[in-house]
Amino acid sequence: MTSRECLPPPGSGPFQLDGLAGQLVKVGLALSSTRELGELLELVLHEARTMTNADAGSVYLVEGNTLRFETSHNQTLSERLGEETVRTMFKRFELPLDAHSIAGFVALNSSILNIPDVYAIPGGAPYRFNRSWDASHDYRSRSMLTAPMMDQAGRVVGVLQLINAMHNAGGKPTVLPFDTRFEPIVAALASQAAVAIVNAKLHRDLQAAWLDSVFRLGVAAEYRDKETANHIKRVSEYSVLMGRRLGVTGDDLEYLRWGAAMHDTGKLGIPDSILHKPGPLTAEERSTMEYHTLIGALILKGGTNPLMRSSQVVSLCHHERWDGGGYPRGLAGEAIPLFGRIVALADVFDALISRRVYKPPFPLEKVIAILTGERGRHFDPAVVDILLENMEEACHIKDEYMDTDADFEKFRNYSLLKIEDVL
Amino acid sequence: MTSRECLPPPGSGPFQLDGLAGQLVKVGLALSSTRELGELLELVLHEARTMTNADAGSVYLVEGNTLRFETSHNQTLSERLGEETVRTMFKRFELPLDAHSIAGFVALNSSILNIPDVYAIPGGAPYRFNRSWDASHDYRSRSMLTAPMMDQAGRVVGVLQLINAMHNAGGKPTVLPFDTRFEPIVAALASQAAVAIVNAKLHRDLQAAWLDSVFRLGVAAEYRDKETANHIKRVSEYSVLMGRRLGVTGDDLEYLRWGAAMHDTGKLGIPDSILHKPGPLTAEERSTMEYHTLIGALILKGGTNPLMRSSQVVSLCHHERWDGGGYPRGLAGEAIPLFGRIVALADVFDALISRRVYKPPFPLEKVIAILTGERGRHFDPAVVDILLENMEEACHIKDEYMDTDADFEKFRNYSLLKIEDVL
Repeated sequence: MTSRECLPPPGSGPFQLDGLAGQLVKVGLALSSTRELGELLELVLHEARTMTNADAGSVYLVEGNTLRFETSHNQTLSERLGEETVRTMFKRFELPLDAHSIAGFVALNSSILNIPDVYAIPGGAPYRFNRSWDASHDYRSRSMLTAPMMDQAGRVVGVLQLINAMHNAGGKPTVLPFDTRFEPIVAALASQAAVAIVNAKLHRDLQAAWLDSVFRLGVAAEYRDKETANHIKRVSEYSVLMGRRLGVTGDDLEYLRWGAAMHDTGKLGIPDSILHKPGPLTAEERSTMEYHTLIGALILKGGTNPLMRSSQVVSLCHHERWDGGGYPRGLAGEAIPLFGRIVALADVFDALISRRVYKPPFPLEKVIAILTGERGRHFDPAVVDILLENMEEACHIKDEYMDTDADFEKFRNYSLLKIEDVL
Repeated sequence: MTSRECLPPPGSGPFQLDGLAGQLVKVGLALSSTRELGELLELVLHEARTMTNADAGSVYLVEGNTLRFETSHNQTLSERLGEETVRTMFKRFELPLDAHSIAGFVALNSSILNIPDVYAIPGGAPYRFNRSWDASHDYRSRSMLTAPMMDQAGRVVGVLQLINAMHNAGGKPTVLPFDTRFEPIVAALASQAAVAIVNAKLHRDLQAAWLDSVFRLGVAAEYRDKETANHIKRVSEYSVLMGRRLGVTGDDLEYLRWGAAMHDTGKLGIPDSILHKPGPLTAEERSTMEYHTLIGALILKGGTNPLMRSSQVVSLCHHERWDGGGYPRGLAGEAIPLFGRIVALADVFDALISRRVYKPPFPLEKVIAILTGERGRHFDPAVVDILLENMEEACHIKDEYMDTDADFEKFRNYSLLKIEDVL
């Protein structure tokens, strides 16, 4: 395998990556490049069915002690009922991870199972085929090739099941057993899928852990203020709503979501005597309070990832005004970064429309009147228009993350905090 | 390619994933499972040389407008000088990403280049071979196969270069040109490597972004206290030093590192009047101060990832005492989680050995005397012993992250904070 002896004979032209092994190489590349788990499962099922000419197929993933049914294709039923209908027929369900089912047997034994007819499984076999689905959908499962999706460390992460190998006998489609020569191909494809699934899950978990940490930084900041964790959620969601309608897409929308959550990080640096003062602030106190934009930008400074950079932008710019009368830089109009203009409005909108410890919520008409009055003054007119056009959805967000009395107390009265609350 | 017609003829036995395409499938799986970039580059270079019987080879990665030389193998020189010597001969260097070099030409044109003899490149070619390395190492580069490492989106992320295709002519090794039939194999292998490199970088970036966020949460908490970001670094590093010597390994060591950075998160919830009080605290104030362990655990509660969970443990348990006299739970001995016992010592050690705004550093002998006196009282004796045994390394950490006057001022005096400081 190490030199030119394993090349095709000279004169047979350039070596082409064709045949099923060549196809596997290409599928492996596509699988490795797909990070979205659902997309990945669709792709492997599609490729496995194409390679083996299987009429139907399913993918299961191992979740603890169960096998979770994830996705399914069925060509015959799709032609009979339409693809959309078939898609709704497959509901998510779980099987116990034991040897009584075919998929369970394959997962537990880490080996492929090639059954010529699932209605003719010998009585002595530990597994059996459940005919109820066939009966209720007028389908006849016959041949079945089931392979473990095993990663490089030998862990079974799921099961790939192919049903009814089709063969055109004189124009008439017939079901045959799966050719045994497909077994190593399907096993390899299932392994490629397993490695890609492990990578996709790791990526998803890492991203979730990161966003969790970012959110906690935002919550920690609000903790010192009179605000609640719900305020952060609401400002995030209003910002995403407006951003999406203004054409922000993909990753940028996520950066806006988490940047918005960090808008008041700098309040960590403001003294209690000012932050918690009940009455109005003096001019000097107000000037100190305004430093929270700079302090936040300092805490978030120097991040190399776009999320940290947009958080810094939001922290620095969410008190600028469209007319140039804001702080800390007195930027005006489009010189204020878009994320800053969006969060400025989201933050004030929430202060008006939601209850605060010091005020009840304002009626919607009053909120709309105030925002309209500040259109082109405090706020970017385009951003105000977008919010007004989507006011119904914004009010849904407000209701979904409404503060309760407990929220107002939870972080405030630490003398009531018990060890049970944190375990 | 869609049914049994593409299988080998019946009777030829089970289809085996052998030959170079089958080998590619296996290498693809190994590459996709490797997340460490250096390991990945070693693996692809090894496999490419093995498949083509190349005497030598190098890998370059695209970094902005340059090609960075990453790794190299050379069989002839390794036999002559020993592998260790050869490894030190290759230094990291950069090439401009232009068509004057062979690697640059391949990267810019996204196409493979198969040169029979690099000393006989026609004068009209845009690229040329640099003979200086050959001259200074008494090596003769002759045939060279250079392939772009191109990901699924068509981006060239690097270049794979194979040198001197070896052939045994009657026991005598001879250099031949690379057989053109290797070109698609090497191109496919380079693509597999490209996809794996993109994934490994994404993983690395995501992890860095996450840890950056976690660290900022720790810094934000210290911001309110009299501590500096360097204090966090030091406590983290002392903890990792002790943890490693106590047998903590792998991911757990990382969880300890970042958990230690979060130990005082709960100080976010302590009023300034207590946190910044210059004199000693009253009994009631001290009791309030002790709530920072519970508040921290509350902020970090409910995380699903192990990093967040160990941060919560550290936050909750870093003021427990080995003799049971600590807070908040008064746990004793091994009932205190190990990470809590380690960070408890790291935190106090740093308070003693480092300068604080309110005290100079204590002399080392005094620090050792205090820790020895608290062995089995405040601190786990095993943890104290490990620190004392590794005191030299601990003092290196102290010196490396020493606070300057500027550190003490930076976060304190926000009235001096200028917009230039945060941009």
